[in-house]
Amino acid sequence: MTATLPVFVVAGIGNGTGTGGAAARLFARSGYRVALIARNGEHAKRLAEEINNAGGEAAGFGSGNYSYKSISATWDEVKTFKWPSTQQPAPIRVALWNAASGVFKPFLDQTEEDLEMSLEANVRGAFAFSKQAISTFKENELDEHGARGTLLFTGGIASVKADPYGSSISAGKSGLRSLAQSLAKEFGRENIHVAHAIIAGWILSDLSIASQKILDKNEFIENQNIRLDPENIAASYLYLVNQGRSAWTWELDLRPAHQEW
Amino acid sequence: MTATLPVFVVAGIGNGTGTGGAAARLFARSGYRVALIARNGEHAKRLAEEINNAGGEAAGFGSGNYSYKSISATWDEVKTFKWPSTQQPAPIRVALWNAASGVFKPFLDQTEEDLEMSLEANVRGAFAFSKQAISTFKENELDEHGARGTLLFTGGIASVKADPYGSSISAGKSGLRSLAQSLAKEFGRENIHVAHAIIAGWILSDLSIASQKILDKNEFIENQNIRLDPENIAASYLYLVNQGRSAWTWELDLRPAHQEW
Amino acid sequence: MTATLPVFVVAGIGNGTGTGGAAARLFARSGYRVALIARNGEHAKRLAEEINNAGGEAAGFGSGNYSYKSISATWDEVKTFKWPSTQQPAPIRVALWNAASGVFKPFLDQTEEDLEMSLEANVRGAFAFSKQAISTFKENELDEHGARGTLLFTGGIASVKADPYGSSISAGKSGLRSLAQSLAKEFGRENIHVAHAIIAGWILSDLSIASQKILDKNEFIENQNIRLDPENIAASYLYLVNQGRSAWTWELDLRPAHQEW
Amino acid sequence: MTATLPVFVVAGIGNGTGTGGAAARLFARSGYRVALIARNGEHAKRLAEEINNAGGEAAGFGSGNYSYKSISATWDEVKTFKWPSTQQPAPIRVALWNAASGVFKPFLDQTEEDLEMSLEANVRGAFAFSKQAISTFKENELDEHGARGTLLFTGGIASVKADPYGSSISAGKSGLRSLAQSLAKEFGRENIHVAHAIIAGWILSDLSIASQKILDKNEFIENQNIRLDPENIAASYLYLVNQGRSAWTWELDLRPAHQEW
Repeated sequence: MTATLPVFVVAGIGNGTGTGGAAARLFARSGYRVALIARNGEHAKRLAEEINNAGGEAAGFGSGNYSYKSISATWDEVKTFKWPSTQQPAPIRVALWNAASGVFKPFLDQTEEDLEMSLEANVRGAFAFSKQAISTFKENELDEHGARGTLLFTGGIASVKADPYGSSISAGKSGLRSLAQSLAKEFGRENIHVAHAIIAGWILSDLSIASQKILDKNEFIENQNIRLDPENIAASYLYLVNQGRSAWTWELDLRPAHQEW
Repeated sequence: MTATLPVFVVAGIGNGTGTGGAAARLFARSGYRVALIARNGEHAKRLAEEINNAGGEAAGFGSGNYSYKSISATWDEVKTFKWPSTQQPAPIRVALWNAASGVFKPFLDQTEEDLEMSLEANVRGAFAFSKQAISTFKENELDEHGARGTLLFTGGIASVKADPYGSSISAGKSGLRSLAQSLAKEFGRENIHVAHAIIAGWILSDLSIASQKILDKNEFIENQNIRLDPENIAASYLYLVNQGRSAWTWELDLRPAHQEW
Repeated sequence: MTATLPVFVVAGIGNGTGTGGAAARLFARSGYRVALIARNGEHAKRLAEEINNAGGEAAGFGSGNYSYKSISATWDEVKTFKWPSTQQPAPIRVALWNAASGVFKPFLDQTEEDLEMSLEANVRGAFAFSKQAISTFKENELDEHGARGTLLFTGGIASVKADPYGSSISAGKSGLRSLAQSLAKEFGRENIHVAHAIIAGWILSDLSIASQKILDKNEFIENQNIRLDPENIAASYLYLVNQGRSAWTWELDLRPAHQEW
Repeated sequence: MTATLPVFVVAGIGNGTGTGGAAARLFARSGYRVALIARNGEHAKRLAEEINNAGGEAAGFGSGNYSYKSISATWDEVKTFKWPSTQQPAPIRVALWNAASGVFKPFLDQTEEDLEMSLEANVRGAFAFSKQAISTFKENELDEHGARGTLLFTGGIASVKADPYGSSISAGKSGLRSLAQSLAKEFGRENIHVAHAIIAGWILSDLSIASQKILDKNEFIENQNIRLDPENIAASYLYLVNQGRSAWTWELDLRPAHQEW
């Protein structure tokens, strides 16, 4: 593994079975070192180990929470981290904010804490993460695609549509989308690529399989027409990173073939 | 003044020369008692006095800030306030969240505090205000237009479009818009009307006149084609309140005739 | 009736029981002469007679179809029409394109004719109508609200959302919306107000009552919470016409209180 | 070249230096036979020859115009065309409607013909093309990505935003987008993937280089940050075709890194 292998940072990997984990594995197989940020450091370390065992190079970082301070500090750790194979820090080229949090419930039952949870995971943490990512990317040279770095955000239906019971989540998710749009416009001109993916459906993961809203779990697991594979989402992130600078995507939607919308 | 005159609550009146103030004056002339909420209680009391002197009935309430707790508590005060003319509380029928806060500056210069200011004024305070308003309206009977109450939000261009340097503002404003949309869908079916106005341009007020971005102040003051009159905005709020239940507007935009867009 | 009473032109009145008819009646009661354009001239003349009998002044014009040529020629007729009360033409101040046409059916069953019907009613006719309206308005002086004229368009859910089976309708309706948006931007600066209403639900009319999709016709007729009153829509059109020039609306949505969306 | 190589059909290749031509070349290099449809058959045949000389297999078809009848008939020709290498028709798997037409000029100078040109290239021709493509795809088996076929549309800024002087173009382009959206929803459930790309900027081609709006032609040709490479657009089309069925994109935007928006 050479000193020049760039780093992919992903925040929000949950237990590693969803989008963040799939992105980490795919980027690890595609020539990136992977820095994994999770609130729960054990989750991050476990996934790092899995990736290392598979021949990649990964490291896990626990942030505790998504506060501005914690996310900023964790990024500092990542930035100065000495990768085992070279005993040196490595250039960060891609960053993905994949954190999400929020509850769907009747508005009058939503508490200040419910709102805060959404604002922290979707807006405040993402804001701190973006400041660090953009500052870091500005120091990079252009890569072969004409980018100094790529900053990716995972959004959802709530990013563009606020439904009943979803005010807290939608407030956070639309806030995240606005952040992404503003950054895309402000930093495209500095060859930093910012993109936002609208994941418009259920994603296959341990968490979603366990959800009581999934009635037929076998169907959900096996039928690729009705739910999203984290691997397919990850592939779209890698595609975004490899787009030529003359035709960058700010936003795309992703949904299963049979999804009603 | 009869006991049944309903109350219009407006939060975010600044020094009384902008949208909040104009709405307060118009509703006072149109058969409403007016409860004025400002962070600065002196501003609220001064405008209340002006309205009272003009033959209306108004009362000012200082909230100190736009925190969840302060806004909730201030609404409680409004709800139990004994109006001088009747020495009794009066039914609240219309509520307008007109607060706004935020700075336009390069993303890397934006601090956690800049973001918080936007989230507090645009999302958190509005969330607390909405919970109180909706809870209150649910107790009302239908009025002659078929509504239990009307909850209005003042938005801006940043509500639907995130520009460079505007990430904090847009995160807050789009969050507010999502809140409004979710509530419109959730509570329309209970005959509570929720509406969001996109004010797409400069509003004539002491504050805007003083802005260094306004180059020709005389032109700005006199030419109705290029900036918004608070009175015209207020008229649209009164119109929204009076719409028949069969054709409610969730969102409209307002902009000067000569505005480029 | 004085010589200066302005004219309201409405195209697309069907049999007079829907939005076009309601707008005609309301504007007639609000100080406008009314020029009624329908493909079926008999419908137009019958409604004109009703309005004249009620003390208004109206005239009906049959266009035969919505072709560019027919709509242009019909407008010429309206423009030079000598109103009975004064034996002179009168200034046209407001124009409403309310025509609509289109079928919902499986895409592969849609014919070239189905598409053409939608393009003609929604785009081509509206384009011809708009050229005439704008040309006419440009000659007007500003009115007391700061407008030379107001051009209104009736849109629907299909204007902003294309659903399965709705490709022809949505192609036409989104085309109409784009026309309206372009004109609003191009002619606002000449004090011509262009506005587009998204009617997001079923409208009470003879036609909709007869539709097989309306299962409970009594409920539909009596429950204002679930379908739109043409009178409420008309009221919003009159409101748009009377907005002050400092705060013009380009677009608003209208939907029944209990509508799911 | 085996009998099973699938066919990529592209309509709207102009003189072959823009998006349609680049897509044709890329798909030819990526395992597709290419059927080229142009109004001018000579253009189509010339590009086919170039692709054949480079080791691909292509055939050109002249449609004369974009009328419903011509496009339908041309597709029939493509469908039954016996490819030289096998002397048999081959399965059509991907279709791209890349035609565009329209003028930017003051609304009052726009003629019925200007509008028709836009409606024909953007809506009517696309509608006929889509009917043929969907009918054809329905007969296909699922491919390894879970699709029976992919139908692609090239859109532009006018697809989502109507600017002054652009009413005809925007009416056509937004109509096309609505068609694409309706089809994506209707036929996703039959595993036919429909996608729409918003090309938000100038595309490098003979035509754009010649435009008087391009002031610095050298800069335009050489600076990938300020205009789109047809090759980069084509790459995104190939990516869309290869997405797994669990995460299909309906819409993405493409713009140069330094584009202001």
